[in-house]
Amino acid sequence: MDINAIQKPTLIIRPEVAKANISVMARKAQKSGVVFRPHFKTHQSNQVGEWFRSEGVSCITVSSVEMAAYFSAHGWSDILIAFTANRREWTTINQLAAKSRLGLLVEDLESIRFFQQHLEHPVDIWLEADNGLGRTGIPVGEVENFIKLAKEVHSPFVFKGLLTHAGNAYHIESDTEAKQIYQDTLENMTRIKEALVSAGFNPSISYGDTPTLSRVEDVSGWDEIRPGNFVFFDCTQYQLGSCRQEDIAVGVACPVMAVYPQRRQLVLYGGGVHLSKDYFISNGRPCYGFVCKPDEQGWGALIQGAEVSALWQEHAMVDMNAADLQTIKTGDLLVVLPSHSCMTVDLYDEYLTPGGEKLPIRS
Amino acid sequence: MDINAIQKPTLIIRPEVAKANISVMARKAQKSGVVFRPHFKTHQSNQVGEWFRSEGVSCITVSSVEMAAYFSAHGWSDILIAFTANRREWTTINQLAAKSRLGLLVEDLESIRFFQQHLEHPVDIWLEADNGLGRTGIPVGEVENFIKLAKEVHSPFVFKGLLTHAGNAYHIESDTEAKQIYQDTLENMTRIKEALVSAGFNPSISYGDTPTLSRVEDVSGWDEIRPGNFVFFDCTQYQLGSCRQEDIAVGVACPVMAVYPQRRQLVLYGGGVHLSKDYFISNGRPCYGFVCKPDEQGWGALIQGAEVSALWQEHAMVDMNAADLQTIKTGDLLVVLPSHSCMTVDLYDEYLTPGGEKLPIRS
Repeated sequence: MDINAIQKPTLIIRPEVAKANISVMARKAQKSGVVFRPHFKTHQSNQVGEWFRSEGVSCITVSSVEMAAYFSAHGWSDILIAFTANRREWTTINQLAAKSRLGLLVEDLESIRFFQQHLEHPVDIWLEADNGLGRTGIPVGEVENFIKLAKEVHSPFVFKGLLTHAGNAYHIESDTEAKQIYQDTLENMTRIKEALVSAGFNPSISYGDTPTLSRVEDVSGWDEIRPGNFVFFDCTQYQLGSCRQEDIAVGVACPVMAVYPQRRQLVLYGGGVHLSKDYFISNGRPCYGFVCKPDEQGWGALIQGAEVSALWQEHAMVDMNAADLQTIKTGDLLVVLPSHSCMTVDLYDEYLTPGGEKLPIRS
Repeated sequence: MDINAIQKPTLIIRPEVAKANISVMARKAQKSGVVFRPHFKTHQSNQVGEWFRSEGVSCITVSSVEMAAYFSAHGWSDILIAFTANRREWTTINQLAAKSRLGLLVEDLESIRFFQQHLEHPVDIWLEADNGLGRTGIPVGEVENFIKLAKEVHSPFVFKGLLTHAGNAYHIESDTEAKQIYQDTLENMTRIKEALVSAGFNPSISYGDTPTLSRVEDVSGWDEIRPGNFVFFDCTQYQLGSCRQEDIAVGVACPVMAVYPQRRQLVLYGGGVHLSKDYFISNGRPCYGFVCKPDEQGWGALIQGAEVSALWQEHAMVDMNAADLQTIKTGDLLVVLPSHSCMTVDLYDEYLTPGGEKLPIRS
């Protein structure tokens, strides 16, 4: 990587790492006989999307109508918007439905009726199930409610199935706990699916989240999986045990602005507007990212114990042991591996590869 | 405000409120005989900058070379970059110094020498003083260090003065505490100034932060003040007691995606990518913003007790009492007043006024 060319906080991608992550997940889905419908909200980039296409991916997930429009314009023709369908955007949804197979996520009768009344072009209707996250969706215990809503979907609209996100897996403390959430969720969803089959429907069940899907080898039982974050991973996933440090595929190169040996700290140019304020807990306190030295592949191993301990709009505070701190001076560059890659990527318009190529985001 | 036209999370500005905030601070500086050098990182908009110009403002503060370039291109010719000067951007700094009076912030000998060696066009050199924030700058106790560094600035470069940011004022619990921080900081800075005067220098002292400057009426003693956030304020400032709720000048209009009466919650389309993940503490837990109903002026009074209690990439969870919740349905619009307006504004390319005008950000 041409370190001298970097002047300010810059989002770096390691394509080979991302491609390997994609390949692992694609093979897992294939071996289990499950459709792989990756969530593209993490990378938001057509060029990264092409790496998925090379692995045979043809159906995708996004989290906004805007993202659906972007990927539709880049030739994706089977897109599930895995965010409660927004009635206020129905005209754009209608335009997209004219040219792509579009999936909408709903959880109430009024929404099903609204879209069936307003859209000229039919869409797939997915019902969201809440498996304990307590955010959106119909609680999995309310089996009759799923059946009642499925009955409200009328041809040419298609009741496609049930979707869930095990966001509660972001609070696990062990592999056992992650696998338990996975197993419970699969059982809950299978039970609703069977009830729907008995009622004459043929629903798919769709599941997504990186903490559990990165751990479980056999994902059969689902009709499709929708992980997103795994393409890049990040420090939160590393901390959760979902990946190795060498699986993290994005980092932010940040100039060192000042070094404070007495405080065992240094300050980077790279604040909340460059990293996002998302954090995880490390050693009992908030951490906004781990830190590495840059190299020709992007970055090297984590500097042991080096943590971004505070963020302002433009500044990052890094705590670091004295010996490592001695090797760094003002004007150097360090790479921060983000706490939450989805949030960090969203702050940029492009990725820079170690080879100097720029990959656009959202354009 | 044309509520029906809003389809997705949209940044709303109330120009009259922002203009009144500007006017209060401009008059305060004027009455105290102090230069008003507002920080433009909060709004990042030339059109908002023009409102400051109408109040007689001609010198400004920014937090990046990029922002300095933007405002320089819009006719601002006295710009202080109140962020440790970044050696990696020296060529851009040099270009800007050719056409504007540019202030750089440094805290070490190497930086002073670096810029004096590399820049063809002279700049003002400001030394950063650390008054207890513990982020960047020379600790205020090290008076000799300031004198030593001031001596290293050689003509045509100008040693302009001392700058500090009382970021510790963001942790105050009372007006008394805020005023104490203000007073201590003024005394510390005056002491260093006097030592520099005795050593033959004529330094300015520059001070900025909204929590103290919004409280103190007489700001004489400083040569200039650099508050930024006060132009819009936000829930953090409201919570700190720096402003009234009606002084908050930006909000994010968000569609209601689902209402959960049993949980006393609703979910908005408006996540971390629309609001930022900055939070303040309300009733002992993180709060990402307070909530209002939209109206023709932008928004009405705060809905008592309504708080954004969790944020994901696209979703916001709002806790709300049962009576208010009954008045809201899926598809409605609510306005979230942000926790930290600087961070929220940075996520958008434009403001929308209640009258339907769009004000560009950074362009």
